[in-house]
Amino acid sequence: MHSGTQFTQGLRLAMDNGPAWTVEAVRQVRYHVVSSDHLFSPDNTTLLTGCPDAPLRAGERRLVVIDENVDALYGARIRAFFAHHDIAVTVLALRADETVKQFDAVSRVVDAMNDFGIDRRREPVIAIGGGVLTDIVGFAASLYRRGTPYIRIPTTLIGLVDAGVGVKTGVNYDTGKNRLGTYAAATATFLDRSFLRSLDLRHISNGLAEILKMALIRSEELFELLERSGPAVRADRFQGSTGELARAADAIVAESIHLMLEELQPNLWESALERCVDYGHTFSPTIEMHALPELLHGEAVVIDMALTTALGALRGDVSQGQADRIFSVIRALGLPLWNEVLEDPSLLEAALRDTVRHRDGRQRLPLPVGIGRHRFVNDVDPAELRAAAQLLRGRAQGATQDAPAEALVGA
Amino acid sequence: MHSGTQFTQGLRLAMDNGPAWTVEAVRQVRYHVVSSDHLFSPDNTTLLTGCPDAPLRAGERRLVVIDENVDALYGARIRAFFAHHDIAVTVLALRADETVKQFDAVSRVVDAMNDFGIDRRREPVIAIGGGVLTDIVGFAASLYRRGTPYIRIPTTLIGLVDAGVGVKTGVNYDTGKNRLGTYAAATATFLDRSFLRSLDLRHISNGLAEILKMALIRSEELFELLERSGPAVRADRFQGSTGELARAADAIVAESIHLMLEELQPNLWESALERCVDYGHTFSPTIEMHALPELLHGEAVVIDMALTTALGALRGDVSQGQADRIFSVIRALGLPLWNEVLEDPSLLEAALRDTVRHRDGRQRLPLPVGIGRHRFVNDVDPAELRAAAQLLRGRAQGATQDAPAEALVGA
Repeated sequence: MHSGTQFTQGLRLAMDNGPAWTVEAVRQVRYHVVSSDHLFSPDNTTLLTGCPDAPLRAGERRLVVIDENVDALYGARIRAFFAHHDIAVTVLALRADETVKQFDAVSRVVDAMNDFGIDRRREPVIAIGGGVLTDIVGFAASLYRRGTPYIRIPTTLIGLVDAGVGVKTGVNYDTGKNRLGTYAAATATFLDRSFLRSLDLRHISNGLAEILKMALIRSEELFELLERSGPAVRADRFQGSTGELARAADAIVAESIHLMLEELQPNLWESALERCVDYGHTFSPTIEMHALPELLHGEAVVIDMALTTALGALRGDVSQGQADRIFSVIRALGLPLWNEVLEDPSLLEAALRDTVRHRDGRQRLPLPVGIGRHRFVNDVDPAELRAAAQLLRGRAQGATQDAPAEALVGA
Repeated sequence: MHSGTQFTQGLRLAMDNGPAWTVEAVRQVRYHVVSSDHLFSPDNTTLLTGCPDAPLRAGERRLVVIDENVDALYGARIRAFFAHHDIAVTVLALRADETVKQFDAVSRVVDAMNDFGIDRRREPVIAIGGGVLTDIVGFAASLYRRGTPYIRIPTTLIGLVDAGVGVKTGVNYDTGKNRLGTYAAATATFLDRSFLRSLDLRHISNGLAEILKMALIRSEELFELLERSGPAVRADRFQGSTGELARAADAIVAESIHLMLEELQPNLWESALERCVDYGHTFSPTIEMHALPELLHGEAVVIDMALTTALGALRGDVSQGQADRIFSVIRALGLPLWNEVLEDPSLLEAALRDTVRHRDGRQRLPLPVGIGRHRFVNDVDPAELRAAAQLLRGRAQGATQDAPAEALVGA
């Protein structure tokens, strides 16, 4: 019935020995990130009308998956909000930390979606919690009937500025961090900093690590803002208790997210392998999985950044003075410079090999150039890594003498 | 640092109460379906060079996941082929039928990918088996590091004409058929009909059900071909033992796949809800899951088609003569017209309700109009379903008298 070569839009048929088809298509993706503090104040309607693609109307129902710690603190207020607006919610409270970020947790969300009898066109799942929780729920939603929409409400700083604004979902598998996952944007992410008021300072620091990452690779201006106001904004937990603190907190969050989205948008599915947002994420997965549960994600990332800053300093890309400023800001933000896993050079070498495998045969390692710029290199060798680790250890040990209490070495 | 509304390509920032971003992007997808019989003949190089996007070179290695039954029959030949071309293969043989199409099977594939240390940019997983196996492997690959390429080599007729040419992956969950899954095209699917020579006739019929589906909704010409040559091509297992059988088998397979791809290409991610390729798939998931393991997928689909043909006859869209021809072809292809689950009207009603929920509040039910055309309706009610089931039961019982041995009622 067919012969020769035929084209219809996006479908090509060639008849050689037998028929051969090529199918081409494009998929359009759109998602929203909307800031609104005090999202669950009864008179705040952002959750109802703030996202054009996910309206929420009186009389509707929703499945809400919430971190059990967030539920304990805010559950009553959240339920009251939905009741006030005549939304019938079914709430699943989940434990959500890195150690339970496994497929079992995904299964529990899927069970809840099954029990709820979710209408996958009209009833997006609402995820309220940190990055681990939103990653789990996003993963479950993306698989359920091959894609059910979901809404994210991050309750941690790292969720607000990092996990909550991208399109990655996933869980750990075996020893592989986020080994299983999907690219699936939440229809909307609502950013409400009022949740941060109950966050312990270590978790505020955890999010500041990702903000610092964006500063180091993209913006000296943001770095200077962190240098100037970071510690005070941290102590204030981004609550804007004074006008000055509010302006600084607004600027830090908005600028960090904007830079992040500028980097993500052209490369949502990570087809480009040289990604500056991978800065701090070359050695950190290995560090994090080996030090689990000792280190938080941002702490592992900042140790990676400290190590690669040392690498940059050895290469002369980062001056002594710049490296000192970077190390000082890390400490002032309550973040560690060092972890014992860096003592094991074979671990770093394995991480480097892993990176090469994931980045199609080359290191494509983003390294800092001064403050606020970066370049990609492919020639880091184990000896150089060891030297950088040694330099960093010296700096971290020296630092313990004049540093603030909390973090510094390890967590 | 930001004020007013800013646009960069695909990223919009609006400053109202707080910043709000909209991210837009498109993802490009391309995949290939290449016919080549005797793929594993040592001198057939299609697998090495037949797909421009998935070259396979001497000295490389691959992970092969194969159905254990296929392995028993063809494993030695397949290993010899790879050895001949200096490809080091690691083979995972899996049991793959509808009852084990669960996440556990996905886990086993993920374990094998972990153990293999797969390079997700250069080493596509090769899946050899029926639709269940390729769905499982495709699902695992699509999740592994958020997407690892895979190659499909279907070994069943239904795999060749249906599961193997689309982009859906997935597994069952609880009682939900394909409840979890992804849209993830195999980089290439290689169609090799020589595998069908060892397939039992029931599984040949199973694939013919999906071919008949394409005929009933899209092509009277293909229907007439099935009517004329279907039984002989079936008995010959598509091996083309005579020139005439070869021409008929070629035409049936090529036309069926071409029609299928014409329908899939504009709607790869199923955003359009009126899909004629869903014909036969409204009641069949419920029928299949309730009759498991009694019915094969195509058998459940053909029972759905027989039921909706009866519905079309009651509505006057399908003439008595046309319905008779359709029922005759179903029987002649060794397929059932009826299953006892149709006796339970509540089951059909539940399936209809489920369909409405999945298709955003309307039935959007494709019904046959004559032979080779269709229309969508939204007004089927339980009483009409019962009447159609009754009509069909009469026809199926009448048919037992003059029908061939194998299938007819049930499996």
